[in-house]
Amino acid sequence: MLENLRREVYEANIMLPKLSLVNFTWGNVSGIDREKKLFVIKPSGVEYEKLSPENMVVVNLSGEVVEGDLRPSSDTLTHMVLYNEFPNIGGIVHVHSPWATAFAQAGIDIEAFGTTHADVFYGAVPVSDALTKAEIDDAYEENTGKVIVRTFRERNIDPDAVPAVLARQHGPFAWAKTPIKAVEVAKTLEVVAEMNYRVLQLTRADSRVPQYLLDKHYFRKHGKNAYYGQEK
Amino acid sequence: MLENLRREVYEANIMLPKLSLVNFTWGNVSGIDREKKLFVIKPSGVEYEKLSPENMVVVNLSGEVVEGDLRPSSDTLTHMVLYNEFPNIGGIVHVHSPWATAFAQAGIDIEAFGTTHADVFYGAVPVSDALTKAEIDDAYEENTGKVIVRTFRERNIDPDAVPAVLARQHGPFAWAKTPIKAVEVAKTLEVVAEMNYRVLQLTRADSRVPQYLLDKHYFRKHGKNAYYGQEK
Amino acid sequence: MLENLRREVYEANIMLPKLSLVNFTWGNVSGIDREKKLFVIKPSGVEYEKLSPENMVVVNLSGEVVEGDLRPSSDTLTHMVLYNEFPNIGGIVHVHSPWATAFAQAGIDIEAFGTTHADVFYGAVPVSDALTKAEIDDAYEENTGKVIVRTFRERNIDPDAVPAVLARQHGPFAWAKTPIKAVEVAKTLEVVAEMNYRVLQLTRADSRVPQYLLDKHYFRKHGKNAYYGQEK
Amino acid sequence: MLENLRREVYEANIMLPKLSLVNFTWGNVSGIDREKKLFVIKPSGVEYEKLSPENMVVVNLSGEVVEGDLRPSSDTLTHMVLYNEFPNIGGIVHVHSPWATAFAQAGIDIEAFGTTHADVFYGAVPVSDALTKAEIDDAYEENTGKVIVRTFRERNIDPDAVPAVLARQHGPFAWAKTPIKAVEVAKTLEVVAEMNYRVLQLTRADSRVPQYLLDKHYFRKHGKNAYYGQEK
Repeated sequence: MLENLRREVYEANIMLPKLSLVNFTWGNVSGIDREKKLFVIKPSGVEYEKLSPENMVVVNLSGEVVEGDLRPSSDTLTHMVLYNEFPNIGGIVHVHSPWATAFAQAGIDIEAFGTTHADVFYGAVPVSDALTKAEIDDAYEENTGKVIVRTFRERNIDPDAVPAVLARQHGPFAWAKTPIKAVEVAKTLEVVAEMNYRVLQLTRADSRVPQYLLDKHYFRKHGKNAYYGQEK
Repeated sequence: MLENLRREVYEANIMLPKLSLVNFTWGNVSGIDREKKLFVIKPSGVEYEKLSPENMVVVNLSGEVVEGDLRPSSDTLTHMVLYNEFPNIGGIVHVHSPWATAFAQAGIDIEAFGTTHADVFYGAVPVSDALTKAEIDDAYEENTGKVIVRTFRERNIDPDAVPAVLARQHGPFAWAKTPIKAVEVAKTLEVVAEMNYRVLQLTRADSRVPQYLLDKHYFRKHGKNAYYGQEK
Repeated sequence: MLENLRREVYEANIMLPKLSLVNFTWGNVSGIDREKKLFVIKPSGVEYEKLSPENMVVVNLSGEVVEGDLRPSSDTLTHMVLYNEFPNIGGIVHVHSPWATAFAQAGIDIEAFGTTHADVFYGAVPVSDALTKAEIDDAYEENTGKVIVRTFRERNIDPDAVPAVLARQHGPFAWAKTPIKAVEVAKTLEVVAEMNYRVLQLTRADSRVPQYLLDKHYFRKHGKNAYYGQEK
Repeated sequence: MLENLRREVYEANIMLPKLSLVNFTWGNVSGIDREKKLFVIKPSGVEYEKLSPENMVVVNLSGEVVEGDLRPSSDTLTHMVLYNEFPNIGGIVHVHSPWATAFAQAGIDIEAFGTTHADVFYGAVPVSDALTKAEIDDAYEENTGKVIVRTFRERNIDPDAVPAVLARQHGPFAWAKTPIKAVEVAKTLEVVAEMNYRVLQLTRADSRVPQYLLDKHYFRKHGKNAYYGQEK
């Protein structure tokens, strides 16, 4: 079942240690088959070197395991909410990468300070609200997803244009059309967080780029007028 | 004697350079056989590539070498005190990993700023008191252990729930049920210290997580209601 | 066509990931044949492991592709302007290396704080002016080059003596007599940026070296009285 | 001539890139034969992968090349002065390692903040005075050595107990009984500089260890009462 997607999700998961985005088992990638309304996700707590396409877990959009002997990632219900609420995304990554996680813990958005950011994120990557005690005690992982969605709605951010969030006191989630591309977004977020940290230490000036630079770089790589790369 | 434990302790020691927790010979791991009241520890000053299960040193709970041609780690008596005073622990690590050591030198606890911390430490990792001149001149290594224990008692910290300490002006000690798990705790402490450092540079706000988030994440991975990973 | 230059440019490009100067495809190197008035540059968005001397793109000094099936780097017109305006340079590198990019984003020159800098840069590496909205909307990449040139002219900086710039809100460009040497300049800039960042965090004192130290180190390695290395 | 010493110096030099102490050719190691009054040093500007025991250069204590086809390191006369003035040292390292160099550029001593430092340096590693214009214009490299020696004399520092210096605006020199041990000192200095930087960012409290802790740790590893390691 979903053989190609299993392979894609497996390959995206094993990119996490290669790109230095995880220690131990602290991260997971999923990918969705929108037609079948099923997503494939890493099993919980299994080391990356023991993963295979076969031991990935298939879950439906209510969060129930449909196929697989192992428990899915403990973050499965967060992925489920994001797939249900963000209809264009095809893959999701969650990691505790240290630069982005520091911003999530400090509660500071990753603002657009340069073209590295603008090439991928069309505006600031937001920190989601903190969960209340009630939201944590009851359905923690599902509420993590709901609070992310609420943050995007309240701040009027388009998840297709800003494909990542810093879950407050927790760490980043990133998404894209495919699982592999979601991993690339997560890595870009980590690099941009590293640069932003240093800019914030170097100067108290407002370092945000103007809207027209954001427009230029984002649309150089996205949309019908894109001219970066070899696609024509 | 203690063939399995020797192998386990050996394997835990050689993980230290692989996880970038040591330079040269600056670190050691031990593991205990509680029934036999003996622990196995790295020999002093021997390079990791020259270690073998055979050249590990067996020591009793009075700190005397019971088997082995080499001198045990110079920190042996600190390990001994911790085994005597913390009855549930099975393995101990000491390293000079740079992020955690910076906190030990600055005398600043590693507070719980996020879920990465809460998954492993149920509260702040404390800095132990400084040793007095008398404590240093007389039985330095043993007193290092005693001061750690005193710090935990005075601050009412449960060593099973907060399995590490920052020995002031020195560096971290971490422990767990097994030597390998103690190494994982030491690595987690290093990563959390790195994140905390950056949070403290990014904001002067109080970044500590609320108790209910600490409860949620710690008990998601520990105790009878844990649901992370594949153990059922 | 330009077989040797293609190989040189190819080899310089694949040095970028080896020297940790790029993530993904975020960087490009070009090299020029001054007699033929043609330069060779990386194709846009192609991964470094898929590069070969054959898939490099040949471009003329008006920015038109002369040979090659792939689109040239999106930064091609910036390279073109620099080759047209800086007549002695033979190779150009553009990367988003994190230390230098942080300075470009913060808008802070990389001043000469020590001999590591003075060995390669005879004075501060400047941040170029920000592009206006008009300059960005119309011929962005070409204007990026023009603004760099204008910055050097206005500040009276000799591009042969200070072979790099921080394109504001963007990242560094570096150049040299050959593509490989330009990569070495880009790496040196990255290391110097790292050192400068720390100096600026450690002290508020003016840490710039005196002119006579700059003279000594720069001319120890450059010009007719150089005595570093094995060339006689 | 000096076959064993050539091999030792060669091996110490190729440790520099392995320990991440150098980029490109930015570092050199030498070793002395005190009886023959000759030292062996890396050739200038030659890449580490092209070094061999055979292409090391033999120099006498007046700084003249005695054997070798290549030019010796441009820092040769600094090494010469240190060998002449510090009679117990057997090997010297010079690098531009980024943490220690940042302190050299900021003009801040590396103080003893913990046991990692105290195990190797019996007190603060000093920054040497800046060279005057006259000292730079006339015999720069030799004067670099003389200013180091003057700094140790004026501040009454024993070079055998504090085996390194931060040459102001330049970078560290480290020494020891043998070339390999000097490389270990240089690496320790780099790690200690990294820790010190973070301590200085984390707290404004005075983080220097008391003298009795310095005594304990230094003499645990040095002198006739040392008990670290396997030497008896």
